[in-house]
Amino acid sequence: MDNFTFYSPTFFVFGKETENQAGEYVKRFGGSRVLVHYGGKSAKSSGLLDRVEMSLDKEGISYVSLGGVKPNPRSGLVYEGIELCKKEKVDFILAVGGGSVIDSAKAIAAGVVYDGDFWDFYSGKLIEEALPLGTVLTIAAAGSEGSPDSVITKEEGMFKRGATGNAIRPKFSILNPALTQSLPPHQTAAGITDIMAHLYERYLTNTKEVEVTDRLIEALLLTMRHEGPRVIADPNNYEARANIMWAGMMAHNNAVGVGRSQDWTSHDIEHELSALYDCAHGAGLAVTMPAVFTYVMKHDIMRFAKAAVRVWGCEMDFDHPEVTAREGIEALRNFLISIGMPRNFKELGAREEDIPKLVEVLCRGNGRNGTLNGFVTLNEDDCTKIYRMMV
Amino acid sequence: MDNFTFYSPTFFVFGKETENQAGEYVKRFGGSRVLVHYGGKSAKSSGLLDRVEMSLDKEGISYVSLGGVKPNPRSGLVYEGIELCKKEKVDFILAVGGGSVIDSAKAIAAGVVYDGDFWDFYSGKLIEEALPLGTVLTIAAAGSEGSPDSVITKEEGMFKRGATGNAIRPKFSILNPALTQSLPPHQTAAGITDIMAHLYERYLTNTKEVEVTDRLIEALLLTMRHEGPRVIADPNNYEARANIMWAGMMAHNNAVGVGRSQDWTSHDIEHELSALYDCAHGAGLAVTMPAVFTYVMKHDIMRFAKAAVRVWGCEMDFDHPEVTAREGIEALRNFLISIGMPRNFKELGAREEDIPKLVEVLCRGNGRNGTLNGFVTLNEDDCTKIYRMMV
Repeated sequence: MDNFTFYSPTFFVFGKETENQAGEYVKRFGGSRVLVHYGGKSAKSSGLLDRVEMSLDKEGISYVSLGGVKPNPRSGLVYEGIELCKKEKVDFILAVGGGSVIDSAKAIAAGVVYDGDFWDFYSGKLIEEALPLGTVLTIAAAGSEGSPDSVITKEEGMFKRGATGNAIRPKFSILNPALTQSLPPHQTAAGITDIMAHLYERYLTNTKEVEVTDRLIEALLLTMRHEGPRVIADPNNYEARANIMWAGMMAHNNAVGVGRSQDWTSHDIEHELSALYDCAHGAGLAVTMPAVFTYVMKHDIMRFAKAAVRVWGCEMDFDHPEVTAREGIEALRNFLISIGMPRNFKELGAREEDIPKLVEVLCRGNGRNGTLNGFVTLNEDDCTKIYRMMV
Repeated sequence: MDNFTFYSPTFFVFGKETENQAGEYVKRFGGSRVLVHYGGKSAKSSGLLDRVEMSLDKEGISYVSLGGVKPNPRSGLVYEGIELCKKEKVDFILAVGGGSVIDSAKAIAAGVVYDGDFWDFYSGKLIEEALPLGTVLTIAAAGSEGSPDSVITKEEGMFKRGATGNAIRPKFSILNPALTQSLPPHQTAAGITDIMAHLYERYLTNTKEVEVTDRLIEALLLTMRHEGPRVIADPNNYEARANIMWAGMMAHNNAVGVGRSQDWTSHDIEHELSALYDCAHGAGLAVTMPAVFTYVMKHDIMRFAKAAVRVWGCEMDFDHPEVTAREGIEALRNFLISIGMPRNFKELGAREEDIPKLVEVLCRGNGRNGTLNGFVTLNEDDCTKIYRMMV
């Protein structure tokens, strides 16, 4: 196991009706003037925003609101949020929504206390200071409620890039599984896929002897395998929603990913798809992962065979472990299709003729030097082949 | 899943030679005048204490030292530590040792800022305020490095009782698996048993539909099953030590135990043994757990069958699930014996004739009302039968 540090100081409040405690927790963590950041109409029409604002009123906390965060959140709204916070002397940001809203809130939190352009953080600069923020989560997917990460798309060039730093870990995150019951099936399935991708990106490691994190990752994948179809079949199944919600947090706060190299090339390769086509990140990952895994499988057949046996219940073929490895990848692909995810470029809404452009931005955009460094180092030729496998 | 809150703000520093960063982390978390709390000779003779003190010197942090913490730490030394901290105006406590040292440090930390008798906290009062503390861990076992818990034995009456509160979660914990390589096999095995007990106490729940935490607990038990024998066979196996050390933390910071009722009757029943005979807590648990589990098995046969199949690799007997359930308990017992743990009262050094006294203190001591409330409610008659099964 490699040396590491791990720090996850977020206070999690989990369960039914917990959104009514938002004001109480803002107060506990020192907020007195709040930016309520949210997405579209559903937060308003469902009454969620009202309940959250009522809980702020109850504590005598004043606030301004900024809605309009879209999936694959954009830099434009971040700049707007930063200006608004400065003008209104905001001291706490409350994100009410999913990963996109939380990521946008994190970018604003970092940008408000930074003299330069917030995009510096999305070009590699570590976030060391930020306004405190809290979240009220409405979709189990990104894991941003417990992570130090944020992904934003820059409108000029449509670069989709990530930033990180313990300073943007939420002070508290309110997780009410019931809030996710009204999600459309496609969004629910995309969230499930995103969670599974966070697990696979950690599973694909070049570090040896990491049984504890291997087992923990497998445990969360097994949970998704069990609960995913249950929640697709019955969107109102609170228990299945609850298990998925905690699994989603655990998949990405990195407790199960410490001390080992991680992959993240599937995320990189997908990000260009959701940046260009504005598809759901999870839907893009459903098409990307099986292609990437099939392409890199030979790098460590036994690791893929282990996932096949332990997660997907495949029988180990001891004479031909590559057969088992491939079966595991096919089981993942079939699982994702079974919950309603797309299987190829066509179903995703992507176009074969865009591949050269996708590869160019992926491998050369925003300062990259032509390669992706993960489980296997991939160059432009590799990435072209992987995108072609997805057609 | 039940509603819950989860908060684990400890900063973990994991890996080789990390004890040399102790001073740096004390400084980062605001310490300027430190109590270095430790156990016996090994911390001194191994040079660990020197290295830790050198790292404090390097940061210009002054300190006083208090050694002498024994396994099953006593209230006497806690009172002494509280007085010393007050006299020396200590503002940070650094525990260098295992669970006993950390638990003693936590008791001192809570006691220093409390006007009453610190034992109030061990009689049910929640710890809401404490001096900040950090740890340098030397044994993977108690999980106290990442938990809000502490167990102390009161010398008058030999009551062994626990206290809890987020205020005593360590600010940082330094985990260097290499420091555990010099542990005698018995202590290593007792630590492994303690970790597995923390997992079983959480596994035995009456909450339904908790797949995510079931799977996470099973993952950590599988890790112990794999790594335990490896580290007993080769005490210098750093990788096995590292996997066990992270599993030990994860087993007890409660990330895998949230949203479900828990048991803890095996701990209660064992505590009287280590209080009376001063045996290793883990050794007592090795004798206690199989007896308790066999006694309560009928309360939920399928839960024990699940552990048997998923953790111990037993074949499910679909016609007679109770056979599978029993096989899993026997597999646990045999595993613990195989790593060198005692199998009964005699091997533990306990005496059958003490059973009435053990039951009396267990069920009536320190304000208890005659029953233990866990997975199954146990009265004095039940506890007598369980102790008799251990003879």
